[in-house]
Amino acid sequence: ATIAILAGDGIGPEIMAEAEAALGEIAAVGGHRFDLVRRPIGGAAIDALGCPLPSETLTTCRQADAVLLGAVGGPRWDKVDSKIRPEQGLLGLRSGLGLFANLRPVTPHPALFGASPLKPEKLEGVDLVVVRELTGGLYFGRKLELPDQAEDVCTYTVAEIERVVRRAGDLARARRGKLTLVDKANVLATSRLWRRVAEDLVRREYADLDYEVVLVDAMAMHLLSRPTDFDVIVTENLFGDILTDEAAMLAGSMGLLPSASLGEGSRGLFEPIHGSAPDIAGQQLANPMAMLLSVAMMLRLSLGLDDEAGLLEQAVWDCVSEGQVTRDLGGSLSTGEAGAAVRSRLS
Amino acid sequence: ATIAILAGDGIGPEIMAEAEAALGEIAAVGGHRFDLVRRPIGGAAIDALGCPLPSETLTTCRQADAVLLGAVGGPRWDKVDSKIRPEQGLLGLRSGLGLFANLRPVTPHPALFGASPLKPEKLEGVDLVVVRELTGGLYFGRKLELPDQAEDVCTYTVAEIERVVRRAGDLARARRGKLTLVDKANVLATSRLWRRVAEDLVRREYADLDYEVVLVDAMAMHLLSRPTDFDVIVTENLFGDILTDEAAMLAGSMGLLPSASLGEGSRGLFEPIHGSAPDIAGQQLANPMAMLLSVAMMLRLSLGLDDEAGLLEQAVWDCVSEGQVTRDLGGSLSTGEAGAAVRSRLS
Ligand SMILES: CC(C)[C@H](C(=O)O)[C@@H](O)C(=O)O
Ligand SMILES: CC(C)[C@H](C(=O)O)[C@@H](O)C(=O)O
Repeated sequence: ATIAILAGDGIGPEIMAEAEAALGEIAAVGGHRFDLVRRPIGGAAIDALGCPLPSETLTTCRQADAVLLGAVGGPRWDKVDSKIRPEQGLLGLRSGLGLFANLRPVTPHPALFGASPLKPEKLEGVDLVVVRELTGGLYFGRKLELPDQAEDVCTYTVAEIERVVRRAGDLARARRGKLTLVDKANVLATSRLWRRVAEDLVRREYADLDYEVVLVDAMAMHLLSRPTDFDVIVTENLFGDILTDEAAMLAGSMGLLPSASLGEGSRGLFEPIHGSAPDIAGQQLANPMAMLLSVAMMLRLSLGLDDEAGLLEQAVWDCVSEGQVTRDLGGSLSTGEAGAAVRSRLS
Repeated sequence: ATIAILAGDGIGPEIMAEAEAALGEIAAVGGHRFDLVRRPIGGAAIDALGCPLPSETLTTCRQADAVLLGAVGGPRWDKVDSKIRPEQGLLGLRSGLGLFANLRPVTPHPALFGASPLKPEKLEGVDLVVVRELTGGLYFGRKLELPDQAEDVCTYTVAEIERVVRRAGDLARARRGKLTLVDKANVLATSRLWRRVAEDLVRREYADLDYEVVLVDAMAMHLLSRPTDFDVIVTENLFGDILTDEAAMLAGSMGLLPSASLGEGSRGLFEPIHGSAPDIAGQQLANPMAMLLSVAMMLRLSLGLDDEAGLLEQAVWDCVSEGQVTRDLGGSLSTGEAGAAVRSRLS
């Protein structure tokens, strides 16, 4: 299998090194072959080539079976007014590869209940996935920027809604059978379309699921007051951006949350949800676990290597349980040592 | 002073009865005169007059010194596809009265730390106000609803941003001097305008404030991981809708959170942030405290009765501390008994 490797900025290269090493170990143990093709993206690509998503990077990703991404962005490129920003590399990749469904699982690990701002009794049994629409809505609508006024347009079509709700429905069916749509249908026209299309689709194709609808403002509360009630949550792009970060707080640490972005086929982009953390970059302080869990999602969802994915996940959770972790999780290991601790459990 | 009384739907009439009784007591004790003018809104107005905001209601509010609102909405009027919905009454009132700034204070009371999903050590010392822009953005932009596609437009002008940031800046100056702008400037054109306008205004007129900018997705985390770091948070309409409900969870109960919606003058609309709770309506189970705290905000912000406002707030918090509360807060009082307990402390 060919894997595009986009290390990106900040701590990206350090955590990606651990991902590559883990893939090397998995290849050796299982007799697989992974061809890794490294390409620049984000700030690193701006510095090297003047553009956050060089066309060669996009082409490589299109030809690959899967894409691994570290992180993009940092204060060096952070002028809001500049025409060229690292995030454009990420947004361009999402739309260029047609990755319309972003999956973010949140399963708090008991060893980290102490690190969450929530009470442990709220976290016990939480096991949810947010499926966020990723190539539509306000992110990709027409924009207007005048000196005195600005405008963003949010558009959704029936087809855009159906394909992502279908992804979420399939996922719910393979899990606990519960699907929750989040919208703001009492105010937004696009939300009313989401609600109508999702309800029709569920009635026709997913009648076996336990289906409910929650307003986005109410969901911002329910995620905290009754997080165990949710299984698969599906929502539009911007609501998903906000709610997934809120949900991340349930897990106690951003350092343990992977994500997958999927399109029609099996190719996906896999990345930790934490950012590039420029303040700790280059010091071997970064936690590689979310990156390694993203590798596991890739093995399962794009490469069909379920056993290897399970093995890697188990290795990560064993390290977490036994305190073989970096300082952000209360351990004392460096990035490389934490990665090595995981690898040592793979053979 | 003339006060428009809009009881609305669900538990609205029950909690409004306690507000009226408290005003009666305050008038008697302090020698004030309050003229209460009752008008229908929301579902009640749809049932009575076929319209969620009858013109007589709007006119009464325009002529009043302040408006008290209970709650609007309920399953009876909850068909998303219908052209007439109770929420339109509320949105029409906000824009009809030019109430562009919605203030929601969140100060968790130690007696209720147990009721919050957050750990007590996170809540200790939290004292923040969200200032939400209330008459612009996606809520009031052009909408398109076709069978196959829908569209919402988010627009902001420099003037709309300046007036609400100024409100927030004045408020921060009267508090701890810290102002936080929340936006999504890495993606939205309107957010880039917010950022530019707010930064210019702060540099010119509020250079004494401690000012920072946080992205909305990061804020969804920071509100939980470091809530004591915030004083006044200012943001656009939809972000404010989501973040204020999330912040409400810090307080342990929706039953204790008031809000004020203000325009250019001193006239405001005051309402609890909880909804109409149709499931418990008419049973004397509703908690009147958020409504009474909204009355206190009205006394202070629209009627200039600071002492009376402080007295009413103190009475509410004393009842909470001593467990003279309704069942949702662990007490055993009815709506009317809780209201009476507060009143008995006013003389
Ligand atoms: C970097 C930014 C554009 C991006 C987004 O808003 O989608 C990030 O917050 C995310 O959630 O992946
Ligand atoms: C009822 C609804 C339209 C309203 C809003 O979204 O503004 C409510 O959620 C609020 O926050 O006051």
